[in-house]
Order: sequence, then structure tokens, then C-alpha cells
Amino acid sequence: MKKGWFSEIGNLWPGMVQSLQVNEVLLDEKSELQSIQVLDTKHHGRALILDGVIQCTGFDEFSYQEMISFLPLCSHPNPRKVLIIGGGDGGVAREVVKHPGVQEVVQVEIDQGVVDASKKHLPNMSCGFDHPKMTLHIEDGFAYMGQHHQEFDVIITDSSDPEGPAESLFGEKYFELMKSALRPGGIVCSQGETVWTCMHLVHKMVSDCSRHFPSTAYAYASVPTYPTGQIGFVLGSLDPKIDFRDPSKVFTSEEMEKMDLKYYNENVHRAAFALPTFVQKKLSPFLKK
Amino acid sequence: MKKGWFSEIGNLWPGMVQSLQVNEVLLDEKSELQSIQVLDTKHHGRALILDGVIQCTGFDEFSYQEMISFLPLCSHPNPRKVLIIGGGDGGVAREVVKHPGVQEVVQVEIDQGVVDASKKHLPNMSCGFDHPKMTLHIEDGFAYMGQHHQEFDVIITDSSDPEGPAESLFGEKYFELMKSALRPGGIVCSQGETVWTCMHLVHKMVSDCSRHFPSTAYAYASVPTYPTGQIGFVLGSLDPKIDFRDPSKVFTSEEMEKMDLKYYNENVHRAAFALPTFVQKKLSPFLKK
Repeated sequence: MKKGWFSEIGNLWPGMVQSLQVNEVLLDEKSELQSIQVLDTKHHGRALILDGVIQCTGFDEFSYQEMISFLPLCSHPNPRKVLIIGGGDGGVAREVVKHPGVQEVVQVEIDQGVVDASKKHLPNMSCGFDHPKMTLHIEDGFAYMGQHHQEFDVIITDSSDPEGPAESLFGEKYFELMKSALRPGGIVCSQGETVWTCMHLVHKMVSDCSRHFPSTAYAYASVPTYPTGQIGFVLGSLDPKIDFRDPSKVFTSEEMEKMDLKYYNENVHRAAFALPTFVQKKLSPFLKK
Repeated sequence: MKKGWFSEIGNLWPGMVQSLQVNEVLLDEKSELQSIQVLDTKHHGRALILDGVIQCTGFDEFSYQEMISFLPLCSHPNPRKVLIIGGGDGGVAREVVKHPGVQEVVQVEIDQGVVDASKKHLPNMSCGFDHPKMTLHIEDGFAYMGQHHQEFDVIITDSSDPEGPAESLFGEKYFELMKSALRPGGIVCSQGETVWTCMHLVHKMVSDCSRHFPSTAYAYASVPTYPTGQIGFVLGSLDPKIDFRDPSKVFTSEEMEKMDLKYYNENVHRAAFALPTFVQKKLSPFLKK
């Protein structure tokens, strides 16, 4: 913070910094795991910052939350029970509970501080926690995963970057654990960084995923306040015949209105998997033809 | 410039600033029309800055140049003669001449200073000017357009933002002039800003285009060093039956290799027109069903 501007400096996007103009710092504290800030920005709504990195802003969080939720949910023919790892702001929960086929959502967030911050300052996201389909546990997602077998249809990992408390959620072992926690035909979707500055990390995640899942895909969405304005998603399915580009569930216009979807639709779903040539070349050994 | 960082401040993206770390300022001058800077950045190659706004960096210019060129070129069944307005760095010319069906390219750039700066400092882009298919004129693109009728198959407008010398290229009259400069079945493609911060401008361009062209479309690509990390394209066609999402020309893998395409491919072409729901709602009155 300098002269009313917050600047995001990170090792994962060297030589570039994004800054947001701030009206007021609503929260600035340290939990046992990380620093937590909530900023009221001048043009981007309220922003949640963990360890100095923007997690979401009111301006554009809908594109991230909708895409990380509905890409896997709509790729699954019948996603009844869903597990969310991370996502302490509640935004992913808010989206997942909207899916008419989802009956039960379990969320495991490691840091009570993030949930408390969101409940106090980000009501448009933390409202996700209040839904009757929801059960929230505060514990380590990696440890939780090791204790659950064949229980979930979809697992969504809404993590911060691998430098910090989320580190274990980026390793190969995590994909192995998720696989065993899935019911047959299950699908996982993890926050997958960006090919523009973290190709090595994307490459590793996609490669790790493909080692445990018969079908792996990489998708992306536009989120202006993330570095490079883009965030990716690593998806794995236990169904070897799946074509992620072809959604199992296509919402009607009425359903989309009712669910208040602002970004996700059938066309955007298909388009999210269309990789630029330089990405396709790097990842194609691990992706389904 | 402050302490080795260049910061991009602009009215079109209030409350957010992107900064790039700079090794060396290679050029810092004023032409009659605008200020021109070339920076050697630490992690993004060389950057061309006009009136304080990043036009392109060596890191990601390929996605912009390829998309603004091949979206219209591959939507046209036979793009023999192409007009480029603006594009003084030469990057669009570099891409357009690659298309095997293109026989002749005319480019009209208003500022000799930009061409000179690129020839001296951005050889990977200005190489576009050296191709035998190319003729470059230094004059006002708006005025040029008024003097040419039914001459071009494709017109590409690679302009800076509307605050400055490119202002006239964003008005309704410009779409009218382009229409009359096109051969039957012709296609135009203009730099179309971003829906995230300039929806009013996108809305106006798409609306203006649709008033003169029977088919109008909006597409977008990921360009990290542009504000919001995304840039759009407004496309118009004189062919009322065109489906922009369905390219007339699909390059073979061999052609793509030979053309050294890093971003554009058939899937990316189709995906570029998949609009998020909030965009679709705003623009659908002007887009073809």
C-alpha cells in the first residue's frame, strides 16, 4: 500500500505489477497461516488479499467462481455430492449450490480467518456458506482427502498460489488422493494458474493429473484482476470417454436467469478448452486427443 | 517511469494500473502527433508505448497481431487485397503477408515516427514492412478511406485508443467509409477495446458497425500486457450469410508451422466469438443470431 494504491508483487509474475486504487482498508490482520486483507477499492469493489496476492474482487470474481464451478459440474452427468477444497471466501460454494442436480456440498477450508473475514466484509460471497446444501469444515484439505474414499462426484480445489498454505494442493500426491476420494466417473477441477507466466507450473499440474486420471484437460477464463488477466483450470475425469468440451448439462435460458449466471454459458464452456497453439504444443502430450 | 518501472495510467481503465520493470529506455521522443517510447523491459521484451499507453510488448504481441489478422482473413473465402489502417509497428503486416491467398497489402499509418521507431528498435515487428506484397503510405487512414471504393477484400484497423490520433477510427462514419472501400463480400476488423472496462465503447462500435454491415460480430483474445489482459475485435461483413465462428479457411498443421503461428488456430478462432453472458446480453441486439 502506497498513497492509496495497493500493488501486487509476486514471484510467479516477475517484472509486472498490478495496482488497484483503494478507498479504505477494511481489514488487515494475520491468521496463523497467512496475512489477510480486505480492501474497499475505488473501481473494483471489495478485494480479498492473502499474503499480498489478490484472491478476488467484487468487480470480476463472478467469472472465476462460475467457471471453476460449472466447467466440472456441467461436464459431469449427475454431480450429486461435491467437495470444495479451499474457497474460504464462499464464492465457489455460492455457485455450486445453484446447480439443480447438486444435493450436498462439503467444503474444507484450512483458515478460519478467511471465512471470518468474508462473513464480515464480503457478504456477496460468504452467502454461499448459508445454503442448506452446505457443510463447512475448517481443516487441512490435503489431510481430509486422505480419509475419504469414493465419496464425491466432483472435487473443486479453489486454492491460492503454491507459495503458502496451499502448496500441498499442487503436488502429484494430491491428484492421487482426489482420485481415491471420487466416485466412479468423478471429476476434479483445480485452480490452474496461467500459461502466460507459470507455464512450468501448469505443465506440472497437467502432467501430474494425467498420471492418475484417464482424461485430463486444461481450460481458462478471463479475470482482469489476476496477473495476466487470465486464470486456468486443470480438469481430470475418471471417465476415459469424456469430452470436456461437450457439456453433459446445458442450462436453459430460464435456468441461467434463475441462477443469475453472468459469465458461464454453453458457448463459453466449449471455448474455455480452445488452447492457443503455444499452449497446445506444451500440453498436448497429457491431454486427450 | 519511476525507479525502473513504467506505469500505465489511463482514463479508460480507472482505478487500475499495470507496471512493467524496465532495463533501459531505448527511445523517448515526441512526434507531431504523440509521444513515442520504446522500453527494453526486464521480462516482457521490448515495449512500444504511445502517449503513455502500452501498444505491444515482445512477450505477448503475437496473440494480438495473429488474432486481429487471421480472424478476418480466415473468415473471408478469398482475401486477395488487404488494407491495414494504423499498425505502425509492422506486426499486423508481418502476419497478413503470411496468408497464402493474400496477394497485395496496402498499409496506411498516420505517424512516420512510429514506423521509424519500430524499424530501429522492433525488428521482429517492422520486418512486416519489408515483404514484397507490402505498400506503406504515411497519411491519415480516415482520409485515405474516403478516396477508395470497392478496392479491398479485408480492412484491418490496428489503432491505438480513441483518445488521441486514432479518434476518428472509432466513429460511425468510419464504418460507413470502410464499407464503401470494400469489394463485395468484404470484411472489416477493428481493434475493439475490452468489455471489462470500456463496455460503452464496445457497445458503440458494435452498434455503429451493425448499422452499415449486414453481419457484425465481437471477438476477443488474451493479451496480458493490455489493461484487463484482454483485447476485443469488432468484425463486420458485407456477406449477410456469414457465420464468423466457422472459418472459411482452415490452415493445415504444415501451413501453421510454416507461418510460425503461436496463438491462432481453428479452435481459437471459433472460441474467440464465445461471449460471456454479461457481454452477450449487452451486444446481442447488434449481433447476428
